[in-house]
Amino acid sequence: MPRRLSAVLSPAEALPPVATALVVDVIRATTTAAFLLAAGARELVLTAEVAQARAEARRRGALLAGERGGLPPEGFDLGNSPREADPERVRGRAVVMTTTNGTRAALRAAGAAQRVGLAALVNAGAAVRWAAAREGDLVLVAAGREGRAALDDAYVLGALVAGFRVLEPGVRLDDGARLAQALFLAHPEPRPLLAASAAAEALAAVGLAADVEACARIDALALVPELAAREGAALRFRPVYPKGV
Amino acid sequence: MPRRLSAVLSPAEALPPVATALVVDVIRATTTAAFLLAAGARELVLTAEVAQARAEARRRGALLAGERGGLPPEGFDLGNSPREADPERVRGRAVVMTTTNGTRAALRAAGAAQRVGLAALVNAGAAVRWAAAREGDLVLVAAGREGRAALDDAYVLGALVAGFRVLEPGVRLDDGARLAQALFLAHPEPRPLLAASAAAEALAAVGLAADVEACARIDALALVPELAAREGAALRFRPVYPKGV
Repeated sequence: MPRRLSAVLSPAEALPPVATALVVDVIRATTTAAFLLAAGARELVLTAEVAQARAEARRRGALLAGERGGLPPEGFDLGNSPREADPERVRGRAVVMTTTNGTRAALRAAGAAQRVGLAALVNAGAAVRWAAAREGDLVLVAAGREGRAALDDAYVLGALVAGFRVLEPGVRLDDGARLAQALFLAHPEPRPLLAASAAAEALAAVGLAADVEACARIDALALVPELAAREGAALRFRPVYPKGV
Repeated sequence: MPRRLSAVLSPAEALPPVATALVVDVIRATTTAAFLLAAGARELVLTAEVAQARAEARRRGALLAGERGGLPPEGFDLGNSPREADPERVRGRAVVMTTTNGTRAALRAAGAAQRVGLAALVNAGAAVRWAAAREGDLVLVAAGREGRAALDDAYVLGALVAGFRVLEPGVRLDDGARLAQALFLAHPEPRPLLAASAAAEALAAVGLAADVEACARIDALALVPELAAREGAALRFRPVYPKGV
């Protein structure tokens, strides 16, 4: 029996218990996570709440990154922008990050799956190879927005489904995976699709429209942030570099 | 400011409070509802639970229709099949109906919207005209399946979005509406799309694959089941015939 690939588009939906999860918050948390590790950050620690993030960063001597309402909270070193992932600032450092939707989705996935990776367009190919090299059923988890399914994340789930099916044509898709895949296949060019999303509109409203362009760079990075350890209410990710299949 | 058309794909998501809702459970509850009224049923009463349905049917001298696990519960006069909507059986009769996903979606919509209609592919054009003729913001509500977004319902939401935009090109779409519309526009032929859904697979498993064909007949009917009254925990629908725009 071929394995099953599910896609959960809405943050309001329960996750099936599976072996492997890929979490997507393409605008911007999982994109920024991949860029931070690609820029040489030693590890990335995700927390749900701002106060937790401050405490973790203090304890670890880490940089503090993230957003509320799209902008960095008071005293944060970095926002949630992939364009801030500057090697001169982050190389060799631990980074603690908290965002509105993405870090919550990662925590949900860590509660349902044995293995968790973070995926976006910038590392879609790497994420697909990472997932395909692991055994068992898989779930793609969209962070969504304000408790609802989001266009941008659904699109990236579709890109992952389509990519996965190239490696494993017989994989069994659920309705969510078929829906996401149809969206992706109908829109080969990601920029206009991402730009039409509510997440992109909200970024434009706070002067960060250029971030969307950075989020649309398919396969710019060859790494996957992989969950290395659960440390209390925090999730610690390290970069892995999947081999080509 | 043009009005807003939202599409809520997942039954796990909260509905925005709006003026008008269209509820979709294309395989099969809202399709069957439209066929029952088209076959001459005087009114259609939806309830969430089987025991309620039995009590309402007894009180009203109504036929009892619906399903659990795809099949009619013990003692029901009709299942949830559009092919059972035979004028010789239902003309002039009240019908009480309870189904797993569709009736719950209707109850959710009735809690959020002032006006509620039932939509499917068989009455998509009529449903779009019905909604367009009413003032205020609109929401399309997918019944989904087992707490998750469903491919078949998302597709019909997309058909309704696309149809609505022909009448009101400036309507503002949310992410859900854009996602559903992309699915519909990528699949002009409904049959293979519906047949790929988990709902169609489940019907095939109980010998009811032919129902899917009946659910795919776009614009076969010119009526919309419209919520006429909330009567305790039951919703009473009557047929309305929207004029062409």
